[in-house]
Amino acid sequence: MKTKIIESADNAYQYPLLIKNLLLSGKRYQPTQEIVYSDLFRYDYRTLYQRICKLAHVLTDAGVGAGDTVAVMDWDSHRYLEAYFAVPMIGAILHHVNIRLSPDQISYTMNHAEDSLVLVHDDFVAIAEQLTEQLPCVRGYIQLTDEAKPVATSLNTFGDYEALLEKASDHYKFPDFDENSVATLFYTTGTTGNPKGVYFSHRQLVLHTINGAATLGLYDGQPLLRSEDVYMPMTPMFHVHAWGVPYIATMLGVKQVYPGRYEPNKLVKLYRDEKVTFSHGVPTVLQMILNCAEAETTDMTGWKMVTGGSAPTLALAQQMADKGILFHTAYGMSETCPLLTLTYLNPSEQALDMNDQLALRIKTGIPNAMVDLRVADPSGNDVPHDGESVGEVVVRAPWLTQGYYKEPEKGAELWQNGWLHTGDVASIDEAGVLQIKDRIKDVIKTGGEWISSIELESLISQHPQVAEVAVIGIPDEKWGERAYALIVPVSGQTVDAGALQAHLMQFVESGRINKWAIPEKISVVSEIPKTSVGKLNKKLIRMQVS
Amino acid sequence: MKTKIIESADNAYQYPLLIKNLLLSGKRYQPTQEIVYSDLFRYDYRTLYQRICKLAHVLTDAGVGAGDTVAVMDWDSHRYLEAYFAVPMIGAILHHVNIRLSPDQISYTMNHAEDSLVLVHDDFVAIAEQLTEQLPCVRGYIQLTDEAKPVATSLNTFGDYEALLEKASDHYKFPDFDENSVATLFYTTGTTGNPKGVYFSHRQLVLHTINGAATLGLYDGQPLLRSEDVYMPMTPMFHVHAWGVPYIATMLGVKQVYPGRYEPNKLVKLYRDEKVTFSHGVPTVLQMILNCAEAETTDMTGWKMVTGGSAPTLALAQQMADKGILFHTAYGMSETCPLLTLTYLNPSEQALDMNDQLALRIKTGIPNAMVDLRVADPSGNDVPHDGESVGEVVVRAPWLTQGYYKEPEKGAELWQNGWLHTGDVASIDEAGVLQIKDRIKDVIKTGGEWISSIELESLISQHPQVAEVAVIGIPDEKWGERAYALIVPVSGQTVDAGALQAHLMQFVESGRINKWAIPEKISVVSEIPKTSVGKLNKKLIRMQVS
Repeated sequence: MKTKIIESADNAYQYPLLIKNLLLSGKRYQPTQEIVYSDLFRYDYRTLYQRICKLAHVLTDAGVGAGDTVAVMDWDSHRYLEAYFAVPMIGAILHHVNIRLSPDQISYTMNHAEDSLVLVHDDFVAIAEQLTEQLPCVRGYIQLTDEAKPVATSLNTFGDYEALLEKASDHYKFPDFDENSVATLFYTTGTTGNPKGVYFSHRQLVLHTINGAATLGLYDGQPLLRSEDVYMPMTPMFHVHAWGVPYIATMLGVKQVYPGRYEPNKLVKLYRDEKVTFSHGVPTVLQMILNCAEAETTDMTGWKMVTGGSAPTLALAQQMADKGILFHTAYGMSETCPLLTLTYLNPSEQALDMNDQLALRIKTGIPNAMVDLRVADPSGNDVPHDGESVGEVVVRAPWLTQGYYKEPEKGAELWQNGWLHTGDVASIDEAGVLQIKDRIKDVIKTGGEWISSIELESLISQHPQVAEVAVIGIPDEKWGERAYALIVPVSGQTVDAGALQAHLMQFVESGRINKWAIPEKISVVSEIPKTSVGKLNKKLIRMQVS
Repeated sequence: MKTKIIESADNAYQYPLLIKNLLLSGKRYQPTQEIVYSDLFRYDYRTLYQRICKLAHVLTDAGVGAGDTVAVMDWDSHRYLEAYFAVPMIGAILHHVNIRLSPDQISYTMNHAEDSLVLVHDDFVAIAEQLTEQLPCVRGYIQLTDEAKPVATSLNTFGDYEALLEKASDHYKFPDFDENSVATLFYTTGTTGNPKGVYFSHRQLVLHTINGAATLGLYDGQPLLRSEDVYMPMTPMFHVHAWGVPYIATMLGVKQVYPGRYEPNKLVKLYRDEKVTFSHGVPTVLQMILNCAEAETTDMTGWKMVTGGSAPTLALAQQMADKGILFHTAYGMSETCPLLTLTYLNPSEQALDMNDQLALRIKTGIPNAMVDLRVADPSGNDVPHDGESVGEVVVRAPWLTQGYYKEPEKGAELWQNGWLHTGDVASIDEAGVLQIKDRIKDVIKTGGEWISSIELESLISQHPQVAEVAVIGIPDEKWGERAYALIVPVSGQTVDAGALQAHLMQFVESGRINKWAIPEKISVVSEIPKTSVGKLNKKLIRMQVS
């Protein structure tokens, strides 16, 4: 198409979308709002900007140049926030090291990312020492400490972060460069193979931030992060930019509280003492928060909370509602920066009794502005928006990883026909509300239909004699795949395949599942294989069956 | 700088920022919210999208291709809104014709823009007929009417807008193209020369919209446009995209009310009947609203209002406050899309009595997110942020015109050293609040300082014998320029230069002005030249003096 392309006058500034520009507004709107680090440290937005300038000097003095990668190994901290800005702002790449990985995996990711400098908190010095010989790319370390002095170490360090900042100038002229420059890099782990690197440019992060600000703050029926809120993350900063909220919060200039290492009682105490109003966390963390001792004596009324990462149960939703927490569910993944969808309640849904809202609040909601999201059948066509038909979630947005770092073949699997394939199976209803059902690899593709293994497991588990169940798809010449179920009966009882098939027939009759969804083969076993974190190990089950 | 540029996997989608993507969210979030046209027409967001598809078919059927320009001559209407989207979405350029210009100027702009198709409302058919012979580029017209049938005309028309839409398909596959494609074009008039065209790309408008949404909605101390608001413009849609708010409102999916031709009583009635909560208008329009008959019987409490275009007086602010209107001031210009700054009240200022807020609410506030704004002295250095020192406002933002259409020399004057020079003189205070003082061409540059002619006029006018005053700068060998004042004494009284100089000395003594700001030459006259709209005609005064 021959559109008219914009012409620029001599000396016109072609504004690139760079992370530095997100820092313009926070200190203008709310210069005296605070950044708080646990119960250790606090300062205002003017100081934040000065410290980012100082860190930029420290990094360049340590030899970091444009295109270099800087790793951070830290809990959630004000220093991490400073690195979120200073590292990309000098044209370098911030690698958020996932400190929960095994030492081997950490070393793999740090070599793959070619980290040249590492900012390492005292708590991770031991592991850094253990790995340093395997990391020829690393030229040195900067130590982060919460004590008067960092721990003694054999690492080749440039010194202590605070001491280095102390000496540096608080002015830095941040350069302009291509908005498509890589700003951040981190790794996502699947069940197989090495961790894969996803990467995001300045342009992508700026767009994720300003669009996320508009989406999070403007709808009465959504999580609300606005100027007078107080933000504390409970999804780690090494995990998908802490869902991107630190950038949004900083752009707005809201008060931010970084809790260090996550300890439930400390998180609740910080919530209470710092008057936190907005947080996010995976269901497991929220469960820990609700169950800790401090929670018993803490009023959590009005705490706005976004959950995601895995589906919250209705029971968790009920517990949160009982504490007065206003919770919402988000959907996204490492590959998507991550924000894609959020619970949204329209005015009539907002008017419902909270108990009646719970089923809505654990849905993943509708796509954010600028997000083009489809649920596609195996031929790539949209499934009907009936809340029942399932397909794969495929997506376009201005902030999706453009591939896997240095692995073009894997990137080409992620991106098919110009759509990022999430690997998630979902339905979408008439109102556009997305409901994630399963991972596509756990879906049973039978007779041209997709059957959710999770749904089948849920239906089978309703049989009174069933204690545990796992469903997988096994190859079938006629149907493509058929469902296969492993059953552990309730202790001291027995159950047979015929009884279970009869049990499932009632759901066929009520129209909930198709007849061919009923597993032809059902094995009664004494134990079902699990992964190290207690999830059904379907990979192993498949291997054992084939 | 050698940063690492992002690499894209095969088939990865490189999302261009296109206006079509602003339409994704409104109909998802609030499908049943309404678009209202005066008391004539209303429909919901699903219909809006269908009508935009239909209009795209009508335009392409009429031969409009990518890169062509389509003109609209209409009051504020739902059809104008449809054109805001459909025209750029097919890769064409929307020319918002300023129907307040003289016929000669309209014809100049339409030829300069090379309009190929014109959407013309009944009210402008007569002028279109008068001009059509002078517009060889125009291949045809589409008529817009509020009646059963459009007015009879000798114009070469394709037919009636509604009849054409009726027949068109409500599906259209909008193409992707370069985000730097020109989307909109309109003309700004100065006091001399022909109108100048400013132009904005898809990328610029998308960024203006999502950033504007975040800025307008997220700060408690700012005008708040959020999901449950009802929007009605009172700045015409042909004037700088109605300040960009129709795009923001549509992205959010809020109810929108388009009032047609501005008639104060009708505007107030629509405000009341449609429960409008958010509007914007220049001070003159607001004054008309306050003074009309409907206003007397209408409760305006809580109506959020942004004013701009020229400085509101404290008296207007007081009148608005007396009616319960929550008003704010914005700053921007045709060249800037337009949003640059907005009144912002911090929490302690919000807590003040409304009467004490007025002086703050008529300031132009602080720059929006992503806006890099400086007040620079003649050497290009930042003036002190003391609320007193004045300089020219220079700016960078992702949505500034990159020049004047087909006039590169004028564009090079606008853009100097990579900063857009607004031609406005302002001070900025410690809190970053901008206060526009004057147009730079009306500033007196004397002894290396800038003196605001408006401020001098205000001080001189405080002398009891002065009825009218105009101050200009006249060349001076030693000082560069010196102030020169023309005075009209109060009827039946006299005043001499010495008395006025003595009067001004008190302001020198109080530190308000420098001694060299006192005009050396003061002429007492019986009349001061005015422009056709009653403003001081400083251009004529300068010519008469030189």
